[in-house]
Formats: sequence, structure tokens, C-alpha cells
Amino acid sequence: MEKKGHFSPRTDLAVEARDMIVEKSGDSLDKKGIISTEENRGGVKVSTVKITSDASVDIGKQPGTYVTIYTDSVKRQDTDRQQMASKVLAEEIGKLLEESGIEKGMKGLVVGLGNWQVTPDALGPMTIEQVLVTNHLFELEVETVHGDYRPVAAVSPGVMGLTGMETSDIIFGIAEKFKPDFIIAIDALAARAVERLNETIQLSNAGIHPGSGIGNKRKAISKETLGVPVFALGVPTVVDAATIASDTMDDLLKYLGRTWENDNKPSQSLVPGGFHFGKEKLTDDDMPDMDKRQVFMGMVGTLSDNEKRELVREVLGPIDHNLIVTPKEVDGFMEDMSHVIAAGINAALHGKIAADESSGYTR
Amino acid sequence: MEKKGHFSPRTDLAVEARDMIVEKSGDSLDKKGIISTEENRGGVKVSTVKITSDASVDIGKQPGTYVTIYTDSVKRQDTDRQQMASKVLAEEIGKLLEESGIEKGMKGLVVGLGNWQVTPDALGPMTIEQVLVTNHLFELEVETVHGDYRPVAAVSPGVMGLTGMETSDIIFGIAEKFKPDFIIAIDALAARAVERLNETIQLSNAGIHPGSGIGNKRKAISKETLGVPVFALGVPTVVDAATIASDTMDDLLKYLGRTWENDNKPSQSLVPGGFHFGKEKLTDDDMPDMDKRQVFMGMVGTLSDNEKRELVREVLGPIDHNLIVTPKEVDGFMEDMSHVIAAGINAALHGKIAADESSGYTR
Amino acid sequence: MEKKGHFSPRTDLAVEARDMIVEKSGDSLDKKGIISTEENRGGVKVSTVKITSDASVDIGKQPGTYVTIYTDSVKRQDTDRQQMASKVLAEEIGKLLEESGIEKGMKGLVVGLGNWQVTPDALGPMTIEQVLVTNHLFELEVETVHGDYRPVAAVSPGVMGLTGMETSDIIFGIAEKFKPDFIIAIDALAARAVERLNETIQLSNAGIHPGSGIGNKRKAISKETLGVPVFALGVPTVVDAATIASDTMDDLLKYLGRTWENDNKPSQSLVPGGFHFGKEKLTDDDMPDMDKRQVFMGMVGTLSDNEKRELVREVLGPIDHNLIVTPKEVDGFMEDMSHVIAAGINAALHGKIAADESSGYTR
Amino acid sequence: MEKKGHFSPRTDLAVEARDMIVEKSGDSLDKKGIISTEENRGGVKVSTVKITSDASVDIGKQPGTYVTIYTDSVKRQDTDRQQMASKVLAEEIGKLLEESGIEKGMKGLVVGLGNWQVTPDALGPMTIEQVLVTNHLFELEVETVHGDYRPVAAVSPGVMGLTGMETSDIIFGIAEKFKPDFIIAIDALAARAVERLNETIQLSNAGIHPGSGIGNKRKAISKETLGVPVFALGVPTVVDAATIASDTMDDLLKYLGRTWENDNKPSQSLVPGGFHFGKEKLTDDDMPDMDKRQVFMGMVGTLSDNEKRELVREVLGPIDHNLIVTPKEVDGFMEDMSHVIAAGINAALHGKIAADESSGYTR
Repeated sequence: MEKKGHFSPRTDLAVEARDMIVEKSGDSLDKKGIISTEENRGGVKVSTVKITSDASVDIGKQPGTYVTIYTDSVKRQDTDRQQMASKVLAEEIGKLLEESGIEKGMKGLVVGLGNWQVTPDALGPMTIEQVLVTNHLFELEVETVHGDYRPVAAVSPGVMGLTGMETSDIIFGIAEKFKPDFIIAIDALAARAVERLNETIQLSNAGIHPGSGIGNKRKAISKETLGVPVFALGVPTVVDAATIASDTMDDLLKYLGRTWENDNKPSQSLVPGGFHFGKEKLTDDDMPDMDKRQVFMGMVGTLSDNEKRELVREVLGPIDHNLIVTPKEVDGFMEDMSHVIAAGINAALHGKIAADESSGYTR
Repeated sequence: MEKKGHFSPRTDLAVEARDMIVEKSGDSLDKKGIISTEENRGGVKVSTVKITSDASVDIGKQPGTYVTIYTDSVKRQDTDRQQMASKVLAEEIGKLLEESGIEKGMKGLVVGLGNWQVTPDALGPMTIEQVLVTNHLFELEVETVHGDYRPVAAVSPGVMGLTGMETSDIIFGIAEKFKPDFIIAIDALAARAVERLNETIQLSNAGIHPGSGIGNKRKAISKETLGVPVFALGVPTVVDAATIASDTMDDLLKYLGRTWENDNKPSQSLVPGGFHFGKEKLTDDDMPDMDKRQVFMGMVGTLSDNEKRELVREVLGPIDHNLIVTPKEVDGFMEDMSHVIAAGINAALHGKIAADESSGYTR
Repeated sequence: MEKKGHFSPRTDLAVEARDMIVEKSGDSLDKKGIISTEENRGGVKVSTVKITSDASVDIGKQPGTYVTIYTDSVKRQDTDRQQMASKVLAEEIGKLLEESGIEKGMKGLVVGLGNWQVTPDALGPMTIEQVLVTNHLFELEVETVHGDYRPVAAVSPGVMGLTGMETSDIIFGIAEKFKPDFIIAIDALAARAVERLNETIQLSNAGIHPGSGIGNKRKAISKETLGVPVFALGVPTVVDAATIASDTMDDLLKYLGRTWENDNKPSQSLVPGGFHFGKEKLTDDDMPDMDKRQVFMGMVGTLSDNEKRELVREVLGPIDHNLIVTPKEVDGFMEDMSHVIAAGINAALHGKIAADESSGYTR
Repeated sequence: MEKKGHFSPRTDLAVEARDMIVEKSGDSLDKKGIISTEENRGGVKVSTVKITSDASVDIGKQPGTYVTIYTDSVKRQDTDRQQMASKVLAEEIGKLLEESGIEKGMKGLVVGLGNWQVTPDALGPMTIEQVLVTNHLFELEVETVHGDYRPVAAVSPGVMGLTGMETSDIIFGIAEKFKPDFIIAIDALAARAVERLNETIQLSNAGIHPGSGIGNKRKAISKETLGVPVFALGVPTVVDAATIASDTMDDLLKYLGRTWENDNKPSQSLVPGGFHFGKEKLTDDDMPDMDKRQVFMGMVGTLSDNEKRELVREVLGPIDHNLIVTPKEVDGFMEDMSHVIAAGINAALHGKIAADESSGYTR
């Protein structure tokens, strides 16, 4: 999780990249080589985006399958729905493993990326502490391990500031000795929208490509560099001030747009307290037309979503205001989210563990 | 540290309240019964605001002396300057103690308010762990205590969600048994400006007045309720999304204003990357006139600072986007800031401890 | 949990006190005013000792009911049996509450004694973090609280070295404000037998009597000092080197005694490796007669259990070897044991929570 | 840190192995190929044992130099003397580095062995958190690194129960990528004498040889397996009940021996309280002759130190009483000891850091 350079349209989430590319080009997804489906399972929304090699360059993401699971169960501290999210995650991991030809007894290495001294970046290490590790039992006490378990190892390699070494080197070194059949890597991400913070889990079979710029190729943690499938599992846990500000300006425009519709007299509405339409969620339909946007917010109001964010980054950058922030409840969120993910991984990897009762294994 | 109601112009910091009242009324401070001085000591800016009983209602703060110490040493992770901040804090605490008639051997109770399970709210409890506690030595092994120490006790009462009890009741109960001559209460605050986050330490002799609304009188932790002077020590550690957004919009206006001055062609500059005036800090002088503000940001651009923030809160409130956030480095910031404060308190309370070498006592 | 003076025959556990008094006097328990019963419930042994006022002085324990629950589920890391222990604990707390006239809606204060910076002394504070706190809901959102809950508050008052204040003063102060109908106090104890370490939970209605010597009366946390029933809940988590050594010498005598019986040639058996009777547990029946004890361990072998321990304390005391120790797995033991106790308390206090599914509330 | 098999005369400390071999054979050390020197520097005793290849088999330790630093500064919580211990440690590390041909700019890997979830086994990981890591600065911002620093990396590989992998495999994998010029490995050890617990730091250039039995060769972390010098740094943090009991029995014999000398009437002295010779430390000279040992403690009293311990292990083993324990103050001890070691390592590795002011780098 690194602070991205200014003006970089890069996002860690495929669903965001997909939306950006559509916004920009106006083309249909099919034409671009992107297949996108959505489904609702037990109250959990699951969005799947498949990116072909052709589409990869355009969208700025590696080819592969990207699954996004939407769950506000962590934010709402709803234990029952957290269990449901774990179950759905387990199913999706299971599907991706199968697609990639990973069979029942094959051995896995789970890698928790991030810095355990920085809570919002500790999702990986916190998950690792709850992953059911079995590989040593296969080596030492094979008679105690049921056929429904598979050999699993787990490690938190730290970050460069803690170890002094390239994280990818540590993983490569360990993988060469351990020789896993597949790798699952967990990481905290930066959100490009406030609403995704601690609400989405992205899972893909495309590996991890830090920086993703030229010359960084060797640092990717992927099938190309490691020779075995690498599944990446990420959750946005931080957001920058520029994103908060530009998201808020969009909301402001929608809000004023809706008010105009309702009252036809926005100028009065600008007096605080003048709005009465309650708690209905603002939607894209509330965004007013270009003329009204200019009235409400001048030239700034006419910028596109991306242009606005980039302008704000330009403004905040030099004066060092572009804070990376996390919700104040970060401790509880990280605890619950790492639990959801570890329970999902444990149920996916070991046939013996039922998805909805796997929480016992994570204590 | 509670989420404040929408549209409340309330702030925990006296310097902010002072600025708001000036902005609103245009009157001079003297006329309002507010005496404000500023000084720079060893690179640390110290601002002192004295509020008379007359001014108290207007400004919405209890009468008393409010000292604000500005230090970015925690943000910059600069250990030497953190020591200097502790030294200045010790001097200011010393002055306030003396003003309030607290003599050398009098016994103190240090109270760390806040929730130790929520890192940005744990400043009080984290500080308490580092406060030099001596009272029991005076009772049990009086011969081991030099004359330069005073009896000090310390407690973290928790928050209602943890204890089920009113925090003020816990403090009242303990104070009735312990009978301190004075109390120092430490708390994390909400910032009303991003730039104050973890950068200002406010110290006052006015006690703590949570909620500060009608009917909450009994919950104040103050000389009125406890019979002895109560010194409050607070640091802003969180900020809400509305503040981030409205601060950013102000910066945006200043930025565009400065660009206009430089280039006289702001329209082009809106293309990202079009700005070249480097890292000079934006100042109030960069804020353009009303006409230009309207051009840049429409009706929203013409709102005052307060109106903007209140509008944003109105917008964010219903759709639940008004997150309370904290910088992602919260763990390190809380550790260093609690160290700075504990070192300052220890040096102020015990003559034996030199302010700049007191860090040894906080490990 | 304090290091006890040398030669003090004092024990925190009533079952140990009972055994000691029988050993010393040879009298029957009935005659002494002690009623002792034992039962096995779901694999958990429960021993109940009732001490009358008459017996109180002899046995060195306050009059009252003392329940000891034996469970090696924590040591064995057996989650299922830990749940059973919680269930039995809940039942026993329920019985004691009823006996003491505590009715359904009456409000309770749970107090976690001990030092959270010293893991084996942190049982109280760790339990408090998992106790379901409801009192504030009754005050603030009474409509959300079912009739099956009762108002419960919880606090960890710390120890004198942390706060500088008498722990009892803190509790008295809080209780005067909160006015609970009953108090449950949790503490870590010193074991007088290695085998009880983290294996027994003692519950009583006799309050807590630290030091229990003359002049300490005022510091007791009991019905006498607080006016409401005080239930004490303790678990031995540490043991001193003298206890380890004298317990081991007893085992040595039994071992040699059994060998003599088996081989009739103990002299040879003293060559290590000479014993073959496997893993059968040594019992009191294995203790050889006085003559053999003299042969095996000389004058020391002829001492009684108490005399031996006191002699060892005399030896170890001056040379500072009488360490207080805890098993190296202390972190895991404290975590599991605090969970067992909190789950038991939560189920006992709130009718809504089933004893065996209450673990969900302690996360 | 593993529980050793019964009857194994193995010890992690060379000074103990040296003493055992002398006790057993009666030979002089020289003759055995062991050179042993002792010195006192600034109040810190330093003992150096050099073991030749010839002596290696006899003594059961790898050939090499073993330095033992005696410091009770951690136990006594004496910060000044802890600094002195760090200074001496830095000097000794410096000497060993030089002896092994490690030059100024050569790069080092510091490895913290042990389990961070088990406090007494967390010495390695806790030290790593405080080691000054610089390697990445040499790669990324070489201009910020003074010539007096060297590139240092650090890692805590965990234990098999946490990772599922052989710890040595993790280290080998990382070392192959990082290619250090030397390795320093820190580990918690089991003490063979209560008095060494948290009081001795052993440093050697002989690497780490877990198990040290046949067939485990490949798991050694040493120059043989890694190709570069491996310095091992160990501190005894746990002790087993058998050691406590047999040490205590020895003390008991010495105590009775001294009493006999003083009073000539030991029988009376066995009544507790009958001893009056104060707090003088028992020494080997107090050990009575064989006849008196038989009188005092029968056949058991006549056993040698080793025989006694082995007999006790035989007794305790089957009945599962042979606990591995740690002092109850384990949290504080580990914190201070890890600080002492990290400060010593930092000062030894970076010329820029003065040994006695290096503590600032470990916060």
C-alpha cells in the first residue's frame, strides 16, 4: 500500500478500472474484451470481471478474473452477515482454485503483505495469524491429519522499512524452498471511493503487481515470476484526502441537483438547514446537467470525475495536505475483516471446515 | 471524542473559536473580552488566549486561559524537536499550576480520557501508562522519595461503551476518595482543520465540558463540579470528511486564485499538469475576490468558511459519508504524541526531572 | 496477587485450606464447622466447601460458600470442554446469586483486579474486556434492551504501582456513585500446588480480603465494607519455586516408595533409567512409611508437607531464589481462561445468553 | 526453545557444558582443548570459552568462541547498568566480527528466532523490532546514508507451528536472495540453573544447531550450511520444574551444611524459623560431606548434581509435572532484555552509533 503519484489514474480495484474505462471511452465492455457479471448470493453482491489479454493494456490491469464481494457487514459490526461474507468468499476462492487447476491435496502458501506496525496496513499479517496452518502436520504427524485437509503454510514477509529487503525477494526465497502449488496473497489497498472503504473484498487470479510501472516487472508476485498461480485478495482500508474531497464535491452537485428538482429554488437551499428530502441516497441520476453544474460549482463543477480528482491532487500535493486516512474505528474494522478473510480462506482450503462454522478456527 | 451534531459551529480548540468569532462579528478581540498573545520559544509557537466570563458565552468556551502549542515534530518524527515540545509543554503546565495557586508538594491526579480499544481515541490512556506515579511511595516508602517529587496518581477511566458507567461518575468517585489538590485530564479531540491534526496541543485551566449543551452541566469535569482546579490537555487526532472537503475547497479557490494572478488564464490551467508555481504554501492572501470565486466554483465558491462546512455536513450526513478519519500512521503518531505529553507532565510535576531528559521516565 | 511472607500457611484456595486443617488437626470437617461436598457435572468436577463463622478462624478463611471448579480444558486447549466449564461456572454463579438474594433485574458491577502489564496477573482485566456491559443501554436506549438482560457495568481498577492509589479506594469510590446491587471481583491467585495452576476456578460469596492480616480490614472488598454481596472469582496462575520444589520432593518420595513396592530394590533404581512402571499417576497411597522416607531422603524426607514447604522457603528466601513463576504458555492460557470466565459470567448474568453459545459475546 | 528429552545432559550454554564436563571427568580444561578466561568490565563479568574441534565432541558443543556476559541489570530494572551491558555486548560482538574477518561495509542479516505469540520465546522477534535496519537505504537513497553505517536487514522467521514450514528453510531461502556477508541469530534458551534466567547473554561464532542430534545436520544455521559466519546470541528465559527442584535440593543441602557448621545441631534447625545466619549467599563450600548429605537427605542427598536432575526428570516426566516456567515478570524482562540486545547490536554494526547512547535508536 503505497501513496500513488499525483495524476495517476491507477486503481487497485478492477471494478473501478472498468468504470473508468467506460467513462473515458464510451465504448461497450464487450467490445473492449471485458466480461462483467453480477449476482447476489445470500444478500452479498458478487461482481465478476474477466479481462482478456487484449483488454489488459487499455484497462491497466493484468489479464485474469477479478471477483469483487460487497459486504458492509464489517462496518455494521454484524456478525451473522460477516459469516455469510466468509461463506461467499470461500465459494469464490474455491471456484478460482478449480479454474486454475488446483486439486484437492495440492499445497498452498498464504502470504500476508503489509506492515504490522501500521494498523490499516496490517490486514495481511492479521489474517495470517488466523489462517489454519497444517503443512508441518503432514510432515511430522501425518496420521493426525484427515484427508479433508491440505498442506498449508503461511507467512507475513513485512515491508521494506521493517526488513530492509525487497518483499518480493523474501517471498521468492521462501517459495523456492517450500515449493507451493499455489499462493494466496492478502493486502490492504487504497480506495478510490470512500464508499468502498472496508466494504469490498477483491479476489483475483492475476497476482500482485506493485507499482505496475516499467522496470518493476521483476517485483511482481505472479505466475510469471513464481511459476505457480498467485491469487490476490485485497481490501481497501485507506483513502486519500483528494478522493474524499472530490467524492464530496460530486455529492454536493447531486445534492444541489436534487434540491433544484424538488424546490426549483436552489439559491435558498444554500442556507444550511434548507433541505428536507431526508435520508434518501443520492444516485447518479441526481447529477444535474452541465449548465446547472456550472451555476452550482463554476468551472470546477464542469470537470469530469477524474479531472476533478486530479485537480485536487495537484492542489493538495504541494502543500502536503493530501493525507492518507483511515476511519477512526480502524482497530475494530481490521480485526473483523481479517477474521472474515481468514475464515473464508480456511473453509476454501480445507474440505473439513464448513464455511459458516469456520470462525472457531480463527480464534 | 464524540461525533458532533451537524451544523454545530462548536470546536474543541479555543484558537479556532477565537478565529470563528472574529470572522463572524468583525469585532476586535479586546472589545469581546478576549486577550490573545503569541510567542515563539525554541522553534515552538505558543499561543495564549484568555477568555473572560463576559466573552465566554459569545465564544462558546468556558472562561479561563487556553494555551495552544504548535509542533509538527510528531508528524515529522523528529525526536529532538519532540523533546523541545515536551519542554515547552512542561513550562506552560508549570505556569498554569502556579497561576491557579498549586504549590510544590500538592498532590495531583492525572486522568487519561478516551477509549484504549480505538487507537486515535487512546491518547489519554497511552499517556497515563507513561506518567510517573509516585503517590503510593509517599504512603509506603516515604524515605525513598526526594523532596523534589510530589504525590501523583493516575487513572484511565475508560468510556461508557466499555464500562457501562458515566465516565464523570467514575472520576468523581475516585476523586472523593483520593482528594487530589488538582487534576490534569488528557483527551483526544476532533480537529476543525486538517492542518491541526496531531500538530497542536491545547492546555487550559477551564476543565472539560463534554457536550457542553444544556442539561449536561453535571457531567463537566471542572472546578465547579470537583472543587479543585482541573487542567485540560487535548490534541486533535481525528477529523471528519466534511472538514477535509471544505478545507480542500478553500485550498482549491486559493490555488485557482494564485494561478489567475500568475497566468491570467485560469481556464487553461484547469487542465491537470498546467500549474507550475511549485511548492509555495497557499495563504489567505491567495483567496480570490467574490467574482472570481463565483467563476471558479459557482455559488458554492461564494459561501463563507462556516457556511461551506455546514453545507457539506448537510450533504454528507444523510448519506452516511461523513466519516471520522485519522491519518493511516495513527499508531506511530499516538505513540510519539503520548510520549511528548507524558514527558511534559512528568517534568512539570516533579522538580527533580529535567524537562529535556524526562523521556527516560516514560519508557 | 502478592508474594506471601515466608512460613505463612496461608492459601487463597478454600479446598487447600480445608486439606491443610485436616492434615494438621486430624479432626473431621463436620466437627470443625466445615461442610464439604463434591459432584461431577458433564465431566467437570465441582467441589463446594461451606465455612461457618465458627470454622472461619481455624481455617483462616472468611465464612461463606466456596465453590471450586476443576477444569484442565485450558491447559489441554480443548475448546469444547472449555465451553462446558463456562456452562458449569454460569450455573454455580447463578446459584450463589440466588442464595444471596440477588434478583433478576438487579444491577451488577464486575471488577477485574490485577495488573494488565503483567500477563499472569492480567486475568481480571482480560476478562473485563469480554464481559457484556449493558448498564448504559438501560440508561440511554432502554427500548433496545430485552427483559432478559440486566444492567451490568465493568471496570479494571489497576494496581497501586500503576495508579498510585489503593485499589480498594478506587472500587469504593466507583461503587458509591454506581450503587450496584452486587459485585463480582475476578483475580489471579498464587497456587499452593503445581497441579492447580490454570486448572481450578474458585468462586465464593465471601468477598476479597487482601493480606487478610490485622489492620488490613478496611481494604477488604466485601459485604462488610461495601454493603452489597461481593462474589470473588479466582484462578491460580502463578506458583513459587518453593512450592515447585516441595511438591517435587513429595513426588520423589512417592516415586521411590512405589519403586520399592514394585522392585524391592530401590537402591538400584536410583540409577536413572531404572524405572519402568510407566505413566501411572502417583497417588497419596504411594507415599512410603516414615522409615523408608528416612532412607530415601533423610531428615528432610520425614517432614510433613507444610514443614517441608516452610523449610524450603526459609532456604530460598534469603538467597532470592524463591521466584514466582508461570508456565511459559502464559499468554495462551490467560486468553483462554479469561474467555471461559467471561462466558460464564455473561451467561449467569443475562438470561438471554445460553451458556454454551455465549462465547460469541466475548469476542 | 524446545522441551528437552529426559536425561539429556544437554545445555544451551557453553559455560554450563564446561562445568559439567569438568565435574564428570575431573580433567583440566587445557587438557580437554578448552580455553576459558574471565574478566570484569565496568561491573559486567565476561567469560570467554574457546572450544577446539578436538574438545567439541566431548563437550557436546560446536567448536568456536563462546562469550557469556553476566548482567542482573534486567532483573534489577537498573537502566544505567542495562546501558553498560549493551556497551559490553557491542564490544564483544565487534571482536567476534573482526575475528571472523567481517569488514566495515559488509552487509549483515539479523534473524530473530522464536514465537512472538509466546512472550518468553519472543526475545528474538522483540529484538528485531528494535534493530536499526538500513539495507534499503543503501539501495534507494544511498546519499542519505553516512559512511559509518553498514547495510543491515532483519527478519523474524517465526516457528513451525505458526508458518507450517521449517524455520531453517525460511532463513536459507531469504539468505540466498539477500546474500548477507554474515548473520546474527537471536534466540531464547532454556536455563539449566535458575540463577541464569534473564541474567546471562551468550554470544558465539558457532552458529545455531537445533536438536544437535544426528540427522538434524541440515537444519543447523551455521557457516557450514549458509557459507557465511553465523553469530548466535542467546538468553535463558525459561527453566523447567526439574531444574528448579534439583537446584533447590542442592541449596537445601548447603543450607543444612552451613547450619551444622554454625550450630552443630542440625536436628533442631529443621524446625522452621530455627536458622539465623542471615542473608549470606550459599556457596559450593557450604555443601556438606557425603555422610552428612546422607543424614540430611538420605540416598537422594548422595546423588551428583546431574544424577539428581535426571532422577527428578524421571519422576516428573510421566506425571506431566515437568512444567517449563518463566518468571511472572516475563513481559517487563523481555522488553528490557530485547532493548539491551538491540542496542548492543546496533552499536556494534554501525560505527555512527555510540554504544551508550544507542538506546534512542531502539524506540
